[in-house]
Amino acid sequence: MQELEERILADGVVRAGNVLKVGSFLNHQLDIRLLEDCGRAWAQAFADDNVNKILTIEASGIALAACASKFFDYAPVVFAKKSMTKNLDGACWQAWAHSYTHNTDNAVLVEKAFLGPGDTVLILDDFLARGEALKALIKIVHESGATLAGAGVAIEKNFQGGGDALRAEGIKLVSLAQIVSLENNQVSFVR
Amino acid sequence: MQELEERILADGVVRAGNVLKVGSFLNHQLDIRLLEDCGRAWAQAFADDNVNKILTIEASGIALAACASKFFDYAPVVFAKKSMTKNLDGACWQAWAHSYTHNTDNAVLVEKAFLGPGDTVLILDDFLARGEALKALIKIVHESGATLAGAGVAIEKNFQGGGDALRAEGIKLVSLAQIVSLENNQVSFVR
Repeated sequence: MQELEERILADGVVRAGNVLKVGSFLNHQLDIRLLEDCGRAWAQAFADDNVNKILTIEASGIALAACASKFFDYAPVVFAKKSMTKNLDGACWQAWAHSYTHNTDNAVLVEKAFLGPGDTVLILDDFLARGEALKALIKIVHESGATLAGAGVAIEKNFQGGGDALRAEGIKLVSLAQIVSLENNQVSFVR
Repeated sequence: MQELEERILADGVVRAGNVLKVGSFLNHQLDIRLLEDCGRAWAQAFADDNVNKILTIEASGIALAACASKFFDYAPVVFAKKSMTKNLDGACWQAWAHSYTHNTDNAVLVEKAFLGPGDTVLILDDFLARGEALKALIKIVHESGATLAGAGVAIEKNFQGGGDALRAEGIKLVSLAQIVSLENNQVSFVR
Protein backbone atom coordinates (compact mmCIF):
# COMPACT_ATOMS: atom_id res chain seq x y z
CA MET A 1 0.00 0.00 0.00
CA GLN A 2 1.79 3.05 -1.31
CA GLU A 3 0.28 5.48 1.20
CA LEU A 4 1.55 3.41 4.12
CA GLU A 5 5.03 2.92 2.63
CA GLU A 6 5.34 6.65 2.02
CA ARG A 7 4.27 7.39 5.58
CA ILE A 8 6.82 4.94 6.97
CA LEU A 9 9.55 6.60 4.93
CA ALA A 10 8.42 10.07 6.01
CA ASP A 11 7.72 9.51 9.70
CA GLY A 12 9.12 6.12 10.74
CA VAL A 13 12.30 6.04 12.80
CA VAL A 14 14.68 3.09 12.82
CA ARG A 15 16.25 2.23 16.17
CA ALA A 16 18.93 -0.28 17.15
CA GLY A 17 17.81 -3.90 17.22
CA ASN A 18 15.67 -3.80 14.09
CA VAL A 19 13.09 -1.62 15.84
CA LEU A 20 10.97 0.53 13.55
CA LYS A 21 9.19 3.26 15.48
CA VAL A 22 5.89 4.30 13.93
CA GLY A 23 4.42 5.79 17.07
CA SER A 24 3.64 9.10 15.41
CA PHE A 25 0.89 7.58 13.24
CA LEU A 26 0.29 3.85 13.90
CA ASN A 27 0.68 2.67 17.47
CA HIS A 28 0.87 5.54 19.95
CA GLN A 29 -0.48 8.55 18.09
CA LEU A 30 -2.94 7.33 15.47
CA ASP A 31 -3.76 8.84 12.07
CA ILE A 32 -7.31 7.56 11.74
CA ARG A 33 -7.58 8.43 8.04
CA LEU A 34 -4.57 6.20 7.37
CA LEU A 35 -6.00 3.43 9.54
CA GLU A 36 -9.28 3.59 7.63
CA ASP A 37 -7.35 3.29 4.38
CA CYS A 38 -5.67 0.18 5.77
CA GLY A 39 -9.09 -1.23 6.57
CA ARG A 40 -10.31 -0.47 3.07
CA ALA A 41 -7.29 -2.27 1.58
CA TRP A 42 -7.91 -5.40 3.66
CA ALA A 43 -11.59 -5.34 2.73
CA GLN A 44 -10.64 -5.44 -0.95
CA ALA A 45 -8.18 -8.28 -0.39
CA PHE A 46 -10.66 -10.35 1.64
CA ALA A 47 -13.81 -9.38 -0.27
CA ASP A 48 -14.61 -12.99 -1.21
CA ASP A 49 -13.83 -14.59 2.16
CA ASN A 50 -17.13 -14.08 4.00
CA VAL A 51 -15.48 -12.42 6.99
CA ASN A 52 -18.01 -11.87 9.78
CA LYS A 53 -15.67 -11.29 12.71
CA ILE A 54 -12.39 -9.42 13.18
CA LEU A 55 -9.94 -10.64 15.81
CA THR A 56 -6.98 -8.65 17.12
CA ILE A 57 -4.91 -8.34 20.28
CA GLU A 58 -4.48 -5.47 22.71
CA ALA A 59 -3.29 -2.82 22.47
CA SER A 60 -1.92 -1.71 19.11
CA GLY A 61 -4.20 -3.83 16.94
CA ILE A 62 -7.41 -2.42 18.37
CA ALA A 63 -7.57 0.84 16.45
CA LEU A 64 -6.78 -0.85 13.13
CA ALA A 65 -9.49 -3.44 13.73
CA ALA A 66 -12.01 -0.80 14.82
CA CYS A 67 -11.31 1.25 11.69
CA ALA A 68 -11.56 -1.83 9.42
CA SER A 69 -14.90 -3.07 10.73
CA LYS A 70 -17.14 -0.77 8.70
CA PHE A 71 -15.57 -2.06 5.48
CA PHE A 72 -16.69 -5.56 6.49
CA ASP A 73 -20.33 -4.55 7.00
CA TYR A 74 -19.54 -3.64 10.62
CA ALA A 75 -18.33 -7.10 11.57
CA PRO A 76 -17.84 -7.27 15.35
CA VAL A 77 -14.27 -6.80 16.56
CA VAL A 78 -12.90 -9.00 19.33
CA PHE A 79 -9.63 -8.04 20.94
CA ALA A 80 -7.71 -10.72 22.79
CA LYS A 81 -6.44 -9.75 26.23
CA LYS A 82 -3.01 -10.39 27.65
CA SER A 83 -3.98 -10.94 31.26
CA MET A 84 -6.89 -12.27 33.26
CA THR A 85 -8.90 -9.39 34.70
CA LYS A 86 -12.05 -9.10 36.73
CA ASN A 87 -13.78 -8.20 33.50
CA LEU A 88 -13.07 -11.61 31.93
CA ASP A 89 -15.09 -14.65 32.81
CA GLY A 90 -13.34 -17.91 33.51
CA ALA A 91 -14.32 -19.56 30.24
CA CYS A 92 -11.65 -18.42 27.80
CA TRP A 93 -9.78 -19.69 24.79
CA GLN A 94 -6.13 -19.36 25.73
CA ALA A 95 -2.76 -19.51 24.03
CA TRP A 96 0.72 -18.16 24.80
CA ALA A 97 2.82 -15.71 22.81
CA HIS A 98 6.33 -14.49 23.43
CA SER A 99 6.66 -10.74 23.03
CA TYR A 100 10.10 -9.72 21.80
CA THR A 101 9.14 -6.08 22.31
CA HIS A 102 8.42 -6.52 26.01
CA ASN A 103 10.55 -9.65 26.52
CA THR A 104 7.72 -11.47 28.28
CA ASP A 105 5.50 -14.47 27.65
CA ASN A 106 1.95 -13.26 27.41
CA ALA A 107 -1.22 -15.18 27.81
CA VAL A 108 -3.61 -14.51 24.94
CA LEU A 109 -7.20 -14.77 26.12
CA VAL A 110 -10.59 -14.61 24.39
CA GLU A 111 -13.87 -15.34 26.10
CA LYS A 112 -15.40 -18.44 24.58
CA ALA A 113 -18.73 -16.67 24.13
CA PHE A 114 -17.21 -14.36 21.48
CA LEU A 115 -15.60 -16.88 19.13
CA GLY A 116 -17.06 -20.11 17.81
CA PRO A 117 -18.11 -22.26 14.85
CA GLY A 118 -20.38 -19.59 13.36
CA ASP A 119 -17.51 -17.18 12.85
CA THR A 120 -15.33 -16.61 9.79
CA VAL A 121 -12.44 -14.68 11.22
CA LEU A 122 -9.99 -12.14 9.85
CA ILE A 123 -7.06 -11.53 12.20
CA LEU A 124 -5.59 -8.02 12.11
CA ASP A 125 -2.53 -6.54 13.78
CA ASP A 126 -0.10 -3.65 13.36
CA PHE A 127 3.18 -5.58 13.09
CA LEU A 128 4.28 -9.03 11.99
CA ALA A 129 7.87 -9.94 12.85
CA ARG A 130 8.43 -13.46 14.16
CA GLY A 131 4.70 -14.05 14.19
CA GLU A 132 4.28 -15.02 17.83
CA ALA A 133 1.08 -13.03 18.37
CA LEU A 134 -0.51 -14.15 15.10
CA LYS A 135 0.31 -17.79 15.79
CA ALA A 136 -1.38 -17.56 19.18
CA LEU A 137 -4.46 -15.93 17.66
CA ILE A 138 -4.61 -18.56 14.90
CA LYS A 139 -4.42 -21.32 17.51
CA ILE A 140 -7.35 -19.77 19.34
CA VAL A 141 -9.40 -19.49 16.13
CA HIS A 142 -8.82 -23.18 15.38
CA GLU A 143 -9.60 -24.29 18.94
CA SER A 144 -12.84 -22.31 18.92
CA GLY A 145 -14.09 -24.12 15.85
CA ALA A 146 -14.26 -20.90 13.86
CA THR A 147 -13.11 -20.64 10.25
CA LEU A 148 -9.94 -18.66 9.58
CA ALA A 149 -10.28 -16.36 6.57
CA GLY A 150 -6.71 -15.14 6.94
CA ALA A 151 -4.64 -12.43 8.51
CA GLY A 152 -3.84 -8.83 7.66
CA VAL A 153 -0.99 -6.79 9.10
CA ALA A 154 -0.01 -3.22 8.45
CA ILE A 155 3.76 -3.76 8.52
CA GLU A 156 5.54 -7.05 7.97
CA LYS A 157 9.24 -7.26 8.78
CA ASN A 158 9.83 -9.94 6.18
CA PHE A 159 13.45 -10.49 7.22
CA GLN A 160 12.27 -11.88 10.57
CA GLY A 161 10.51 -14.82 8.97
CA GLY A 162 7.16 -14.93 10.70
CA GLY A 163 5.18 -14.14 7.57
CA ASP A 164 6.85 -16.77 5.42
CA ALA A 165 6.19 -19.40 8.08
CA LEU A 166 2.49 -18.55 8.01
CA ARG A 167 2.38 -18.56 4.20
CA ALA A 168 4.06 -21.97 4.21
CA GLU A 169 1.13 -23.22 6.29
CA GLY A 170 -1.24 -22.02 3.58
CA ILE A 171 -2.57 -19.07 5.53
CA LYS A 172 -3.78 -16.11 3.46
CA LEU A 173 -1.69 -13.20 4.68
CA VAL A 174 -2.08 -9.64 3.45
CA SER A 175 0.71 -7.31 4.60
CA LEU A 176 0.22 -3.69 3.53
CA ALA A 177 3.91 -2.77 3.80
CA GLN A 178 6.62 -5.40 3.58
CA ILE A 179 10.05 -4.50 4.85
CA VAL A 180 12.99 -6.51 3.60
CA SER A 181 15.66 -4.70 5.59
CA LEU A 182 16.26 -2.01 8.22
CA GLU A 183 20.04 -2.13 7.84
CA ASN A 184 22.01 1.13 8.10
CA ASN A 185 18.84 2.76 9.47
CA GLN A 186 17.29 2.54 6.00
CA VAL A 187 13.82 1.14 5.42
CA SER A 188 13.82 -1.07 2.31
CA PHE A 189 10.55 -2.50 1.04
CA VAL A 190 9.97 -5.78 -0.81
CA ARG A 191 9.80 -5.08 -4.55
CA MET B 1 -27.67 8.24 25.25
CA GLN B 2 -30.68 6.04 24.95
CA GLU B 3 -29.08 3.52 22.57
CA LEU B 4 -26.25 2.85 25.01
CA GLU B 5 -28.56 2.56 28.02
CA GLU B 6 -30.75 0.09 26.17
CA ARG B 7 -27.72 -1.96 25.18
CA ILE B 8 -26.48 -2.05 28.77
CA LEU B 9 -29.90 -3.26 29.93
CA ALA B 10 -30.05 -5.88 27.17
CA ASP B 11 -26.49 -7.23 27.23
CA GLY B 12 -24.72 -5.98 30.35
CA VAL B 13 -24.15 -8.40 33.21
CA VAL B 14 -23.77 -7.30 36.82
CA ARG B 15 -21.19 -9.18 38.88
CA ALA B 16 -20.33 -9.07 42.57
CA GLY B 17 -18.33 -6.03 43.67
CA ASN B 18 -20.18 -3.48 41.56
CA VAL B 19 -18.70 -4.92 38.37
CA LEU B 20 -20.72 -4.29 35.22
CA LYS B 21 -19.59 -6.57 32.41
CA VAL B 22 -20.11 -5.07 28.97
CA GLY B 23 -17.60 -7.26 27.18
CA SER B 24 -20.08 -8.37 24.55
CA PHE B 25 -20.22 -4.91 22.96
CA LEU B 26 -17.89 -2.35 24.57
CA ASN B 27 -14.57 -3.64 25.85
CA HIS B 28 -13.80 -7.16 24.64
CA GLN B 29 -16.10 -7.73 21.69
CA LEU B 30 -16.87 -4.36 20.09
CA ASP B 31 -20.01 -3.20 18.29
CA ILE B 32 -18.43 -0.61 16.02
CA ARG B 33 -21.78 0.92 15.00
CA LEU B 34 -22.48 1.64 18.68
CA LEU B 35 -18.99 3.02 19.22
CA GLU B 36 -19.42 5.35 16.24
CA ASP B 37 -22.69 6.55 17.73
CA CYS B 38 -20.85 7.31 20.97
CA GLY B 39 -18.32 9.31 18.96
CA ARG B 40 -21.08 11.25 17.25
CA ALA B 41 -22.68 12.08 20.62
CA TRP B 42 -19.41 13.42 22.03
CA ALA B 43 -18.85 15.45 18.86
CA GLN B 44 -22.21 17.16 19.40
CA ALA B 45 -21.44 17.83 23.06
CA PHE B 46 -17.97 19.25 22.34
CA ALA B 47 -18.80 20.94 19.03
CA ASP B 48 -17.75 24.39 20.29
CA ASP B 49 -14.60 23.35 22.11
CA ASN B 50 -12.05 23.36 19.25
CA VAL B 51 -10.89 19.81 19.95
CA ASN B 52 -7.88 18.94 17.79
CA LYS B 53 -6.57 15.89 19.66
CA ILE B 54 -8.18 12.93 21.39
CA LEU B 55 -6.39 11.29 24.31
CA THR B 56 -7.25 7.90 25.76
CA ILE B 57 -5.54 5.03 27.58
CA GLU B 58 -4.89 1.47 26.55
CA ALA B 59 -6.64 -0.80 26.06
CA SER B 60 -10.41 -0.33 26.27
CA GLY B 61 -10.46 3.34 25.37
CA ILE B 62 -8.69 2.92 22.06
CA ALA B 63 -11.60 1.71 19.96
CA LEU B 64 -13.92 4.44 21.26
CA ALA B 65 -11.32 7.09 20.51
CA ALA B 66 -10.62 5.65 17.05
CA CYS B 67 -14.33 5.64 16.23
CA ALA B 68 -14.80 9.20 17.53
CA SER B 69 -11.95 10.78 15.57
CA LYS B 70 -13.78 11.21 12.26
CA PHE B 71 -16.49 13.26 13.99
CA PHE B 72 -13.75 15.67 15.10
CA ASP B 73 -12.41 16.19 11.57
CA TYR B 74 -10.09 13.21 12.05
CA ALA B 75 -8.30 14.64 15.04
CA PRO B 76 -5.27 12.47 15.87
CA VAL B 77 -5.80 9.95 18.66
CA VAL B 78 -3.08 9.41 21.26
CA PHE B 79 -3.37 6.45 23.57
CA ALA B 80 -1.41 6.53 26.80
CA LYS B 81 0.56 3.40 27.61
CA LYS B 82 0.74 1.62 30.93
CA SER B 83 4.33 0.43 30.74
CA MET B 84 7.62 1.53 29.25
CA THR B 85 8.34 -0.51 26.11
CA LYS B 86 11.07 -0.51 23.52
CA ASN B 87 8.65 1.38 21.31
CA LEU B 88 8.54 4.38 23.65
CA ASP B 89 11.29 6.96 23.73
CA GLY B 90 12.62 8.18 27.04
CA ALA B 91 10.94 11.55 26.89
CA CYS B 92 7.43 10.94 28.26
CA TRP B 93 4.80 12.74 30.23
CA GLN B 94 4.08 10.43 33.16
CA ALA B 95 1.48 10.05 35.89
CA TRP B 96 0.26 7.19 38.07
CA ALA B 97 -3.19 5.65 38.29
CA HIS B 98 -4.48 2.95 40.57
CA SER B 99 -6.50 0.33 38.72
CA TYR B 100 -9.22 -1.14 40.91
CA THR B 101 -9.99 -3.64 38.14
CA HIS B 102 -6.47 -5.07 38.11
CA ASN B 103 -5.50 -4.01 41.66
CA THR B 104 -2.25 -2.48 40.47
CA ASP B 105 -0.68 0.96 40.23
CA ASN B 106 -0.10 1.72 36.60
CA ALA B 107 2.23 4.21 35.08
CA VAL B 108 0.45 6.33 32.48
CA LEU B 109 2.87 7.39 29.76
CA VAL B 110 2.60 9.64 26.73
CA GLU B 111 5.55 10.61 24.57
CA LYS B 112 6.16 14.33 24.88
CA ALA B 113 6.26 14.71 21.10
CA PHE B 114 2.56 13.89 20.84
CA LEU B 115 1.07 16.32 23.37
CA GLY B 116 1.88 19.97 23.85
CA PRO B 117 0.74 23.61 23.93
CA GLY B 118 -0.79 23.48 20.44
CA ASP B 119 -3.30 20.81 21.42
CA THR B 120 -6.86 21.19 22.65
CA VAL B 121 -7.57 17.79 24.09
CA LEU B 122 -10.67 15.68 24.58
CA ILE B 123 -10.06 12.71 26.88
CA LEU B 124 -12.18 9.63 26.13
CA ASP B 125 -12.55 6.33 27.98
CA ASP B 126 -15.01 3.50 28.36
CA PHE B 127 -15.63 3.64 32.12
CA LEU B 128 -15.50 6.24 34.86
CA ALA B 129 -15.73 4.91 38.40
CA ARG B 130 -13.35 6.47 40.93
CA GLY B 131 -11.70 8.45 38.16
CA GLU B 132 -8.12 7.31 38.68
CA ALA B 133 -7.33 6.93 34.98
CA LEU B 134 -8.99 10.22 34.00
CA LYS B 135 -7.17 12.10 36.76
CA ALA B 136 -3.84 10.77 35.52
CA LEU B 137 -4.66 11.74 31.94
CA ILE B 138 -5.77 15.22 33.03
CA LYS B 139 -2.52 15.67 34.96
CA ILE B 140 -0.58 14.79 31.82
CA VAL B 141 -2.59 17.23 29.70
CA HIS B 142 -1.88 20.05 32.16
CA GLU B 143 1.83 19.21 32.45
CA SER B 144 2.18 19.16 28.66
CA GLY B 145 0.85 22.70 28.36
CA ALA B 146 -2.09 21.54 26.25
CA THR B 147 -5.61 22.88 26.76
CA LEU B 148 -8.16 20.49 28.22
CA ALA B 149 -11.50 20.67 26.40
CA GLY B 150 -13.03 18.06 28.71
CA ALA B 151 -13.65 14.37 29.06
CA GLY B 152 -16.16 11.92 27.64
CA VAL B 153 -16.88 8.47 29.00
CA ALA B 154 -19.29 5.86 27.77
CA ILE B 155 -20.40 4.62 31.20
CA GLU B 156 -20.14 6.53 34.46
CA LYS B 157 -20.72 4.68 37.71
CA ASN B 158 -21.96 7.78 39.46
CA PHE B 159 -22.20 6.06 42.83
CA GLN B 160 -18.40 5.70 42.93
CA GLY B 161 -17.85 9.45 42.99
CA GLY B 162 -15.13 9.98 40.40
CA GLY B 163 -17.32 11.99 38.06
CA ASP B 164 -18.61 14.36 40.73
CA ALA B 165 -15.04 15.04 41.87
CA LEU B 166 -14.10 16.03 38.32
CA ARG B 167 -17.20 18.21 37.91
CA ALA B 168 -16.37 19.93 41.19
CA GLU B 169 -13.04 20.92 39.65
CA GLY B 170 -14.92 22.56 36.78
CA ILE B 171 -14.06 19.93 34.20
CA LYS B 172 -16.57 19.47 31.39
CA LEU B 173 -17.57 15.82 31.60
CA VAL B 174 -19.96 14.11 29.19
CA SER B 175 -21.03 10.62 30.30
CA LEU B 176 -23.27 8.84 27.81
CA ALA B 177 -24.77 6.46 30.36
CA GLN B 178 -24.85 7.33 34.05
CA ILE B 179 -25.44 4.52 36.51
CA VAL B 180 -26.71 5.42 39.95
CA SER B 181 -26.81 1.87 41.32
CA LEU B 182 -26.02 -1.76 40.56
CA GLU B 183 -27.68 -3.04 43.71
CA ASN B 184 -29.56 -6.35 43.56
CA ASN B 185 -27.95 -6.97 40.15
CA GLN B 186 -30.14 -4.22 38.70
CA VAL B 187 -28.76 -1.44 36.55
CA SER B 188 -30.39 1.88 37.51
CA PHE B 189 -29.62 4.99 35.48
CA VAL B 190 -29.55 8.61 36.68
CA ARG B 191 -32.87 10.28 35.84
